[in-house]
Amino acid sequence: MKIVILGGGATGMGVAAKLKRNDKNNEVIVIETENYVSLGACGLPYFVGNHFENKNNLFARSIEKFNESGIEVKINQKFLNADFDNKKIDLEDQTISYDKLVIATGSTNSVPNISGLDDIKWHKLTKLEDALELKEKCKDTDVKNILIVGAGFIGLELAENLSKLGKSITIVERDEELFSRLYDEEISQLLEQNLQRNKIELILNSSVSEFKKSNNNKVLANINQTEFEYDLVVLASGFKPNTKFFKDSKLKMDNKGAIIVDEFGATNIVDVYSGGDCCVIKNKITNELCYSPLATVASKQAKVIANNICNINSKFSGTIQSSIIRVFDDSAARAGITEKEAISMTMKIKTVFIKDKDHTNYLKGQKDIYLKLIMNEDTKELVGAQMLGDPNSILRFYCLVPLIWNKNKVDESLEQIDLPYAPPFSRTFDIIHIALSKLV
Amino acid sequence: MKIVILGGGATGMGVAAKLKRNDKNNEVIVIETENYVSLGACGLPYFVGNHFENKNNLFARSIEKFNESGIEVKINQKFLNADFDNKKIDLEDQTISYDKLVIATGSTNSVPNISGLDDIKWHKLTKLEDALELKEKCKDTDVKNILIVGAGFIGLELAENLSKLGKSITIVERDEELFSRLYDEEISQLLEQNLQRNKIELILNSSVSEFKKSNNNKVLANINQTEFEYDLVVLASGFKPNTKFFKDSKLKMDNKGAIIVDEFGATNIVDVYSGGDCCVIKNKITNELCYSPLATVASKQAKVIANNICNINSKFSGTIQSSIIRVFDDSAARAGITEKEAISMTMKIKTVFIKDKDHTNYLKGQKDIYLKLIMNEDTKELVGAQMLGDPNSILRFYCLVPLIWNKNKVDESLEQIDLPYAPPFSRTFDIIHIALSKLV
Repeated sequence: MKIVILGGGATGMGVAAKLKRNDKNNEVIVIETENYVSLGACGLPYFVGNHFENKNNLFARSIEKFNESGIEVKINQKFLNADFDNKKIDLEDQTISYDKLVIATGSTNSVPNISGLDDIKWHKLTKLEDALELKEKCKDTDVKNILIVGAGFIGLELAENLSKLGKSITIVERDEELFSRLYDEEISQLLEQNLQRNKIELILNSSVSEFKKSNNNKVLANINQTEFEYDLVVLASGFKPNTKFFKDSKLKMDNKGAIIVDEFGATNIVDVYSGGDCCVIKNKITNELCYSPLATVASKQAKVIANNICNINSKFSGTIQSSIIRVFDDSAARAGITEKEAISMTMKIKTVFIKDKDHTNYLKGQKDIYLKLIMNEDTKELVGAQMLGDPNSILRFYCLVPLIWNKNKVDESLEQIDLPYAPPFSRTFDIIHIALSKLV
Repeated sequence: MKIVILGGGATGMGVAAKLKRNDKNNEVIVIETENYVSLGACGLPYFVGNHFENKNNLFARSIEKFNESGIEVKINQKFLNADFDNKKIDLEDQTISYDKLVIATGSTNSVPNISGLDDIKWHKLTKLEDALELKEKCKDTDVKNILIVGAGFIGLELAENLSKLGKSITIVERDEELFSRLYDEEISQLLEQNLQRNKIELILNSSVSEFKKSNNNKVLANINQTEFEYDLVVLASGFKPNTKFFKDSKLKMDNKGAIIVDEFGATNIVDVYSGGDCCVIKNKITNELCYSPLATVASKQAKVIANNICNINSKFSGTIQSSIIRVFDDSAARAGITEKEAISMTMKIKTVFIKDKDHTNYLKGQKDIYLKLIMNEDTKELVGAQMLGDPNSILRFYCLVPLIWNKNKVDESLEQIDLPYAPPFSRTFDIIHIALSKLV
């Protein structure tokens, strides 16, 4: 069987590798526009922040290694057209037929519509070259004041990394609260305080109305009717599905251009599969489709797609939009839906938000920890959790994920969950016990 | 209602506090043999290890605070007899009647039967005075070579703490492997290697056959037919229920003197309850009674007992014997049953033991992490988990506890569990995903 994969990111290379593990006779061809595959894009902010210097560390596997396992990787390709009826892909210099096609074109950064943007030099951080360029630029000690547009994961991780390089950082964010789609205001505000403590200027509820080049080769940004001067501008205002080639095709997409797939990873077109950042997936709590461009989703969908292509029955269960981020000395983790989302769904809920300590008072390093839980009052299922605390204690959040994932009911038995305790790690009643007890 | 509580440890004071929160009109009297209550005994090794100097840090609440909430605390009491028929307790200088009695006398250290033990000065670490005495002794720089008998939690935590004070430590342990009742050999051996790396001499499968006083005021211990000289000896060979006063009473106990209670915390005698380290409790996996003298159990049982006394229906769900320990630069956590236990129960099982890394390769501090899972092949339920890794990453173990606690089945959906990912905390496929995938 000949399988053509469009895109050499986490999904594409994940599908390729699994196809070969399932059956080494599968003919697998990956088509990639860049000159590399399997970039771990999550590492880019840390590469820019000089946590490491060898760019090869950003790659899970080299092209040579993929070739060794029998996968053909075509880099630097220009994709022109897909002929789904005749099962053919047109590239600039050749046409390739397929038995099965996997669309794993991933996402591309959303470029906000700001007046003057074309007149200035701006940066982004989605590809390897972006990182190399930004890293190089930041070596210049004259580059001091940096504006980041957008306070998402990349925006925040980059802010921390650049700040630690001695840069002065301003973030401008359209929403009224930080991470307002991921967290409720209790945690958002704690994260905002964290940025303030760490001298990151965060301008919420605002956007840049105009960019201008200044005389001294800097950038002038008009924010809330005031002009500020920056040495460098990074756009980090989110991602959108990289699917413009299919705009006029029969491929079923949502109104934002995300491909719609079923639980097997199949699109509406026969023998065409898709997964990862170019798709929408099922939210296990809302049962609605949602756009969740995360590496964790991509790699799990990849396995499901490869299995179904090989007639191994396999289903993707969906997402609870779990995520975690370290922000200086804090970290935050979340899963499920927020209180805001629950209210918008008119779900009857009970919530709790508490502050406690992460371990015993007599051992050094005891820190505050915060937990918010959201329970569906009708079903007694935990539908959301948000935690903020020290990076060394935040992994206790892992307890809450299976509770939401498996739709376990909150009751007295759950309140007694036998979490392990020792003085360096917790208190005899963990913050999770205390929060659960307030929902029973 | 007048409730008399025998014992001012975690269970006793937990019951007392909850009785008052449930109904401030409850008359609550706590009878304690020591001159303190609510000692956090888990802190003793760290107090000895000079992690802190103020002994008050070892107490969750002072007697004054308990008194303020209306709880009468009688310290320094000598308990003589319980007359269950007439609902009376005899102390040395008075007799107290009760409507409900709670036996929370906890545990006492097991003293092994070693020839010559009475002739030498030995230490233990269960009470405040033990810690004060040991801490004082260890200030003497002539106290260099220390023998610890028993490699349980206290033995190991004490070994680490004393070693960091510059002492040379030998541990002698009867069992063939370290923690053989808690871990299978894979993890036990990793912990043994840890002790070796950290210059703790561990003598397994051995015991002291004889103690003798040496001429220079040291102790001679005969281990495996060889005599070794030590400056100080600590016995840490486990705990047994502190119930000898009830030996000839009608109170139902197992053959080791542990009180048998039902899920409401009630004993076989009307209006007499018991909980904590003097009891056996139900193991949720085996459905057998087990002795699990841990603070986590005590505090949960306390709430159940207080509720039932107040006619609030409340049940204790049992234990999965979860525990965690830090040993120098490693930590280990476990829950459920071991492979050995499963085999002895003739349970049909599938196990996996893997080594992985705790986070991305490009961020500093990446460490090895090990995970063993035990699944019941017939029911597909996860019945046991054991992990070893860096103390900053071990809390991911919290994911496995609800899976065992809630008897979730291992299947493709669970393998896809949406754990949050970011480079400082994990890899896109966590070690938990990889291990689960090998059981599906």
